[in-house]
Amino acid sequence: MSYIKDNFLLTTKTAEKLYFGYAKDMPIFDYHCHLPEKQILENKPFNDVFEIWLAGDHYKWRLMRNFGVNEEYITGNKSNKEKFLTYCRVLGTAFGNPLYHWSQVELKEFFNCEIEINEENAELIWNWCNDYIALNKITPQSLIEQSNVTHLFTTNEIFDDLSTFPAIAAKGYKFKVIPAFRADKIMNIEAEKYNEFIAKLGEVSDLSVLEAKIEERLQAFIKVGTTAADVALQGVYPISDKADAEKVFAKRRAGESVTDAESEVFKGYMTYFLFKLYAKYGIATELHVGAMRNNNGVMLEKLGLDTGFDSIAEDNGIKNMSRLFDRLNNENSLPKTIVFNLNPKMNTEIMTLIGCFQSDEAKGKIQYGPAWWFLDNKVGMEKHLEDLTATGHIAAFVGMLTDSRSLLSYPRHHYFRRILCNYLGGMMERGEMTANEQLVGKVVQDICYYNSIKYLGV
Amino acid sequence: MSYIKDNFLLTTKTAEKLYFGYAKDMPIFDYHCHLPEKQILENKPFNDVFEIWLAGDHYKWRLMRNFGVNEEYITGNKSNKEKFLTYCRVLGTAFGNPLYHWSQVELKEFFNCEIEINEENAELIWNWCNDYIALNKITPQSLIEQSNVTHLFTTNEIFDDLSTFPAIAAKGYKFKVIPAFRADKIMNIEAEKYNEFIAKLGEVSDLSVLEAKIEERLQAFIKVGTTAADVALQGVYPISDKADAEKVFAKRRAGESVTDAESEVFKGYMTYFLFKLYAKYGIATELHVGAMRNNNGVMLEKLGLDTGFDSIAEDNGIKNMSRLFDRLNNENSLPKTIVFNLNPKMNTEIMTLIGCFQSDEAKGKIQYGPAWWFLDNKVGMEKHLEDLTATGHIAAFVGMLTDSRSLLSYPRHHYFRRILCNYLGGMMERGEMTANEQLVGKVVQDICYYNSIKYLGV
Amino acid sequence: MSYIKDNFLLTTKTAEKLYFGYAKDMPIFDYHCHLPEKQILENKPFNDVFEIWLAGDHYKWRLMRNFGVNEEYITGNKSNKEKFLTYCRVLGTAFGNPLYHWSQVELKEFFNCEIEINEENAELIWNWCNDYIALNKITPQSLIEQSNVTHLFTTNEIFDDLSTFPAIAAKGYKFKVIPAFRADKIMNIEAEKYNEFIAKLGEVSDLSVLEAKIEERLQAFIKVGTTAADVALQGVYPISDKADAEKVFAKRRAGESVTDAESEVFKGYMTYFLFKLYAKYGIATELHVGAMRNNNGVMLEKLGLDTGFDSIAEDNGIKNMSRLFDRLNNENSLPKTIVFNLNPKMNTEIMTLIGCFQSDEAKGKIQYGPAWWFLDNKVGMEKHLEDLTATGHIAAFVGMLTDSRSLLSYPRHHYFRRILCNYLGGMMERGEMTANEQLVGKVVQDICYYNSIKYLGV
Repeated sequence: MSYIKDNFLLTTKTAEKLYFGYAKDMPIFDYHCHLPEKQILENKPFNDVFEIWLAGDHYKWRLMRNFGVNEEYITGNKSNKEKFLTYCRVLGTAFGNPLYHWSQVELKEFFNCEIEINEENAELIWNWCNDYIALNKITPQSLIEQSNVTHLFTTNEIFDDLSTFPAIAAKGYKFKVIPAFRADKIMNIEAEKYNEFIAKLGEVSDLSVLEAKIEERLQAFIKVGTTAADVALQGVYPISDKADAEKVFAKRRAGESVTDAESEVFKGYMTYFLFKLYAKYGIATELHVGAMRNNNGVMLEKLGLDTGFDSIAEDNGIKNMSRLFDRLNNENSLPKTIVFNLNPKMNTEIMTLIGCFQSDEAKGKIQYGPAWWFLDNKVGMEKHLEDLTATGHIAAFVGMLTDSRSLLSYPRHHYFRRILCNYLGGMMERGEMTANEQLVGKVVQDICYYNSIKYLGV
Repeated sequence: MSYIKDNFLLTTKTAEKLYFGYAKDMPIFDYHCHLPEKQILENKPFNDVFEIWLAGDHYKWRLMRNFGVNEEYITGNKSNKEKFLTYCRVLGTAFGNPLYHWSQVELKEFFNCEIEINEENAELIWNWCNDYIALNKITPQSLIEQSNVTHLFTTNEIFDDLSTFPAIAAKGYKFKVIPAFRADKIMNIEAEKYNEFIAKLGEVSDLSVLEAKIEERLQAFIKVGTTAADVALQGVYPISDKADAEKVFAKRRAGESVTDAESEVFKGYMTYFLFKLYAKYGIATELHVGAMRNNNGVMLEKLGLDTGFDSIAEDNGIKNMSRLFDRLNNENSLPKTIVFNLNPKMNTEIMTLIGCFQSDEAKGKIQYGPAWWFLDNKVGMEKHLEDLTATGHIAAFVGMLTDSRSLLSYPRHHYFRRILCNYLGGMMERGEMTANEQLVGKVVQDICYYNSIKYLGV
Repeated sequence: MSYIKDNFLLTTKTAEKLYFGYAKDMPIFDYHCHLPEKQILENKPFNDVFEIWLAGDHYKWRLMRNFGVNEEYITGNKSNKEKFLTYCRVLGTAFGNPLYHWSQVELKEFFNCEIEINEENAELIWNWCNDYIALNKITPQSLIEQSNVTHLFTTNEIFDDLSTFPAIAAKGYKFKVIPAFRADKIMNIEAEKYNEFIAKLGEVSDLSVLEAKIEERLQAFIKVGTTAADVALQGVYPISDKADAEKVFAKRRAGESVTDAESEVFKGYMTYFLFKLYAKYGIATELHVGAMRNNNGVMLEKLGLDTGFDSIAEDNGIKNMSRLFDRLNNENSLPKTIVFNLNPKMNTEIMTLIGCFQSDEAKGKIQYGPAWWFLDNKVGMEKHLEDLTATGHIAAFVGMLTDSRSLLSYPRHHYFRRILCNYLGGMMERGEMTANEQLVGKVVQDICYYNSIKYLGV
């Protein structure tokens, strides 16, 4: 039996009451993930636990690399079983790492397996889980429905085929799948394949045509239910003039490469354009900042993007963020925005900035998003809650998401909920806030579900 | 009955002993606030709880905006009562926010009201407090004396009329009111009304005349008791030559506007000049860094400065701070200085820097000021104490201030004292420091009162 | 009797079990210190407690300065006894400072003295310790052997005389002394005595000759056992071309001074060269970043380097660090590297970056070094462990070092071990990790000793 008990992360009686009485059974509204919608439509059963649990999860790969594991056992040619056993061995002593918790909870929630993960038990777990898979047909649908998900937002590039979404809707699943609109590949003008990406939009002679195409595509997304968009930047760049962005665009379209400075000019304008567009259509905008990507050129060449070689950037660009929001606000074009920040040193800078742009358009119109990616762990979430409550209003918070490529990641919502209830329960027991359980329970449920569903307008 | 009990924030018996035995009854020496001295002189009774509690407090306004309240209910045309009820509703679920604690404590200490603040109780509290005001004449004097304040330092621009201070002294209040000297409006050369401000000083043909006028005014301040000055900057700029600053000054005096770079040249020189001047007269200098002001242009236009639209800056300028202190130290002109920093990521940078410029002129000649503004909360104060003790000497600390525009803010001193006693009491109970209660109690009293009164030389 | 009990810093039963059962008796492998090897060879007995405890320890000096002590009592002409009494007085109320703990533990471990340090007891402690010294011959050897040290790495400039090391080996001590290779004085081209330092290497006509000399010296170091090198920089600079570095070198060799920008060009190239060289010989490289040195010019003039006037820098240069590691990795020349960072705001940036450059060459090939210098305290270590476990793998960690000039600093290893065991024991008791004591104990022992001995290859 593993160390995970019912009161996992709940260190007071009040925390337990809040979790079991208010949080645990709330449905999940996952407003940002990277699940492939086609996989959900196809709904193919999985063959073994490796396929579900390890294939494609770069968080787990990174942990193995940190422990000195040979790449053959991570993304290489070793068998599924050898990779699985290696991961179990590595995880067995990764005390304090979020994967140490998540992996154990995933086995419990999805395979009814409570064996403690470590080198000694690895083979036993491999057999248990595969037996379970053999006995129970496990598919994307079954995993999502079992997790009590009502809505999930995939992340889609603007040229993605949208026909998958009505097809999923026709399947009669108990949950809705909605695409979030993402123009990253249009924004990232320095990318090698940039002109290929643009080509997917048809004839694009200049920047104004590009803008029109983007708007058309957004309208198409809205037809299949889109209410959210996503912008990812290392940092926010200064707003530049359209004429300057046009020059960079023309240069790149002519097949030339662009300098870092030119790239920032283009992105500075496009960020402004996209936010304005999203405001026009009432789209909630998720702004992701703070990642320094693809640090390891050798592995980029070998494995491609998003394989575990990104890190936290030092840039904050908080002045640029201030000017962007101010300009948009001036032009009555600041959309509802959730800022996701990857560098914890910037928490309070960003939290206090967004407090300058609130309005009665929404409860928490500009949101400080939950602890993200490298911060998506106990320490990161606790710091997020402390910083959020100190400078903002916790009851306005839209709460957790998975941001995951894995169908097994819904327990992260439970993980967050436990930490949330423990945080509030602790303050209640210490006499630092009301003892009114119903009042607090209502706030817990708002953060778990109702705030996000209202904010995202579905 | 609200959740605030006698042992609020005191989680151990030893913490209680320290607080009730040593801290609670110490008088208050408030060495930095923004109370208007004329209001203290006039001493007019208040009419309702809104006037005392909500009017003019931009901390409270911000919280309402974060929860999506319409500006009409914040600074707009709604009635005092409607605004009050709205604030109570919003505050009722602002768990973890410092206002959640402060507001509840303020009701208790100043209105003998222990009703828990929330939507349901709002009307009851409105009536209770207004009945209390009807029965008890509440004036600035009564609020300050009830708080056991012996001295308070207002913040005054150099051209302010100083006759108010002897007039207050003549009233026979139980506390002294002393102006801190502030040259911000002379420093902020980019301000629209800059030349109007300079005009208040009479004929100012060049920078040397300005310097002489500043010194004259400082002498006038000293005559009414001034022992402290205040410098507020987003960050510390490089020291520039007087000749360069003179050029910027001349340009601005001729009615032209100045660039950001020119403004920094001027401020870089003036900061150096002011510190040198303060050293000459033995004036303790409070340096405030780290605020990014007026982010929201629309609201600046509508409501003016200091209405809740500032945030935490990313700049630290720690190298410039090092060079400023080094140059002044070299010239034997580094005054006693308290550095107030708004960005917690810079805590240790600044704390370790000031440790390089200590001397036997004072116990803690260069101080790291208490957690300020956005950091003036439980988490911010605890982090401040942890960082301060780890890299400095806690027994040299000059302690808390209100930095407030509100007459109800003295409980923030009690809030700080509870956190201080809880911090020390916790270490005592865990065997991480001496069990000698008298020795620790003496340090507590020094931090609560004696260190600041000695440091500020009154 | 002082407040230090057997269970000091161990707040749970499980923490005690881990510490006493697994950590306490592990030997010490001190892979980075600043002890003078000649002092170890000469092995002269000490005369009084001041000589061992206060002379030369700039951490203690700083604390006294922070409390307003006159320099005469710190590094000046006052007697050893006066200085000792002053330090005891200052320390008596330095609650929360690491020296408050370290000093008390040092008295206990090395003088069997459990009198609480404060003003009142100062004279008693002075007498006790000096009596102890009179009765027991205390020498460098006795202090190191008593501390159960098996290996210690001194830090040596490349031109240092290496004959001391075989001479020490011939003495038959129970521990080995090994020099770490350091080229700082060759790197710091702006130093006044730069050409004197270069002259110690013989004729150096150009940069290529310098490189050859450095390699020769590294080979000589390796002959006496060196397996580690040390690079100290304020931040990592961009890699520059050798031709550009050559120009700067030639200019400086001609007796001219160099600009900050030129100095960075030189260091940018040299850092790259040194890492490549260390990779070639399989040398583990310790990279120290984040110190802003010599802030106080007056005291630099008076007391020289390393006397307590350094602070934490704001620079992180994380992009440059990424590019340095990527280039070296590309060229198959990235050595095992331990990054020591002085600015806690950069913890997660650096921790996530190094996770991008792991390989199976070593368990934790690129290490995030333990909390260092200004961070070497309870709060700093706890934050280090939290950040390390959240983004890395704790079981790969090479653990603690002293980084000290003092022979009494080995208790810092015990201090770290207690905090480590308390951290893990707390998670075990809260059900956040396995209850398998043997498994956890094995990890504790790896971090205390085996990981570093394996990583450093001795």
